[in-house]
Amino acid sequence: MKIRNEVKELNPYVPGRSQDEIAEEFGLKKEDIIKLGSNENPWGPSKMALSAVGEELNTINRYPESNLSDLKEEIANYSGVNVDEIIVGGDGADEIIDVLAKTFMESGDEFIVPLPSYMYYEFLFKPYGAIPVYGKWNLDDNTLNLVSVLNAITEKTKMIFLCSPNNPTGTLIPQEDIIEVLEKTKDKDVIVVVDEAYFEYSKINNVNLIKNYSNVFIMRTMSKVLGLAGMRIGYGLANAEMIQYMHRIKPVFSLTKLSYIAALNTLKDKKYIEESIEKGIESREFLYEGLSKIDSLNVFKSYSNYILIGIKETGFTASELSKELLKKGVIVRDCTSFKGLDEYWIRVSIGTIEEDKKFLTIINDILL
Amino acid sequence: MKIRNEVKELNPYVPGRSQDEIAEEFGLKKEDIIKLGSNENPWGPSKMALSAVGEELNTINRYPESNLSDLKEEIANYSGVNVDEIIVGGDGADEIIDVLAKTFMESGDEFIVPLPSYMYYEFLFKPYGAIPVYGKWNLDDNTLNLVSVLNAITEKTKMIFLCSPNNPTGTLIPQEDIIEVLEKTKDKDVIVVVDEAYFEYSKINNVNLIKNYSNVFIMRTMSKVLGLAGMRIGYGLANAEMIQYMHRIKPVFSLTKLSYIAALNTLKDKKYIEESIEKGIESREFLYEGLSKIDSLNVFKSYSNYILIGIKETGFTASELSKELLKKGVIVRDCTSFKGLDEYWIRVSIGTIEEDKKFLTIINDILL
Repeated sequence: MKIRNEVKELNPYVPGRSQDEIAEEFGLKKEDIIKLGSNENPWGPSKMALSAVGEELNTINRYPESNLSDLKEEIANYSGVNVDEIIVGGDGADEIIDVLAKTFMESGDEFIVPLPSYMYYEFLFKPYGAIPVYGKWNLDDNTLNLVSVLNAITEKTKMIFLCSPNNPTGTLIPQEDIIEVLEKTKDKDVIVVVDEAYFEYSKINNVNLIKNYSNVFIMRTMSKVLGLAGMRIGYGLANAEMIQYMHRIKPVFSLTKLSYIAALNTLKDKKYIEESIEKGIESREFLYEGLSKIDSLNVFKSYSNYILIGIKETGFTASELSKELLKKGVIVRDCTSFKGLDEYWIRVSIGTIEEDKKFLTIINDILL
Repeated sequence: MKIRNEVKELNPYVPGRSQDEIAEEFGLKKEDIIKLGSNENPWGPSKMALSAVGEELNTINRYPESNLSDLKEEIANYSGVNVDEIIVGGDGADEIIDVLAKTFMESGDEFIVPLPSYMYYEFLFKPYGAIPVYGKWNLDDNTLNLVSVLNAITEKTKMIFLCSPNNPTGTLIPQEDIIEVLEKTKDKDVIVVVDEAYFEYSKINNVNLIKNYSNVFIMRTMSKVLGLAGMRIGYGLANAEMIQYMHRIKPVFSLTKLSYIAALNTLKDKKYIEESIEKGIESREFLYEGLSKIDSLNVFKSYSNYILIGIKETGFTASELSKELLKKGVIVRDCTSFKGLDEYWIRVSIGTIEEDKKFLTIINDILL
């Protein structure tokens, strides 16, 4: 069987194991496991959304609507853009990334990612024959190395991914840095993707750039603060021309009927969103403070709902420490598979304060 | 902004309008509209599935499982294959079609579709630079024109789509015809995709071919008899090597958490499935009989959950007749956009017997 070369060379993405598998391996009760590995909203989904979803269950034998106009209205309100500046994806932001590639990337085109960052850009872009070129983040002072991004730009550059706050470092990119990248690329058919998956936790966004730059694309997800990771909803914001091109190619029915209802009603639940942000920031600061007291940890300041931790001085590798934590029922993210990080980094997502406390007790037990 | 040529040339897929829009335009009550346009299961989803989904609602803030092993077990039982011969897609069969293209199609490769057939193969394949080559169905005796498919095969052929029962004609392809295509292509790196989206309504399937042919791929959906169109679940069956290649590239989390639960529990609900098939066949035969009494209609024998109708002798075009039906609250599929059909064909999906009766009364009123 002849498969494409791009597929032959691809390293399959290895996602985390299920709670059931973990519970079985370590002899834990599933309900006692604390999930601090996937940057979810630990307080659960919006009750308003759940009740709306419940009312729609009987109709799931019918195809979803395809134009999603009510949902786009809500996103427009939430984001401060026009309806024709929005594209909605049915597999979280991942479908949006795929549609970006399919619409714009020719085989041999380059895309730039400063490392470490979200690994899925590369996973989704490589099958199109696109070539990754790496910039970097300064891990010593937790900033974007802007020069490394600017220097990576060539005649073949077609897209640049700037994740802000950056996963996994938690770093916020100053808007003047983003503007510098936009200015350098705006006449060159280069699209600058600002991945704002976690923007709510920083209270800062870059939507205002859409007015002045036709080459900026803001990417968002409802999997984080909006509490809908299980429903796979993402969206993108950009000038209407770019959005219209992407709509030519986007699958028509990829958003499930219940995802649509959940998304629509979560965005209407302003109180839920506000509380999720406030509690999330409180939990992050609580975790940061608790972790900072452990001398052997290099704890990164974060503008998001997770914290990157250098653990070299603990004597554990990330794989070893994650396993010790797993044994005691805590899932964190071993960052070894992130390009640009060595084997001494873990990422911890916010939990409820109660979960944070348990985690802090457990990690103190392991390290002290 | 520079988009790819393949996107520039693409005709956007135009899906049907929403019930709300139709209700508003024609001054109808939404609940009075009879949906006979999308080949859904009109009796609603499995109650067992709904109850399982209801219990899972609280957890949609968490990412879905990615390995789907329980669901694959159920599909294996349902289909009579091994677990490693299954791939599950999160946008109905459409995601499976996309993954087929992304795994196997190089720009310039050809794929064969006998016309008329499901239009989405072409919509999803063209962005990869793949070139459609058309065979045909014999509309006079409602059979596959096997020779047209065999003659369309060239050195560049990489995939062949055989839909059985075929959408929109309802035709079943005899297995010996499929075998003839497989025999002619098996040493040539050509994959023969047998689209069995509607196989339950024919009680015939081609899964037995997987044992003998490494180049056959059976495609299925849970959007039809299984009553889950709104949840976007599809699956494919083939030899383990092909499936493993496709898994390298398939998005990891594309199936929502609730889709997973709905799929799993629908497959466990044997009684629901059996009744849906029996009621579906009964409705189809009832509709066939009723429509056959109208002299001006050319009613196709169907092995599926829809009936193709040639309406040339009615004096209406498909667009005109669909609109007349819409005015009275019935949505059918105007087939003008199907390549290989002219402007005189409509497709009618099965409804409940009550809906069938209403539809027959209305179409009689219009045509007599």
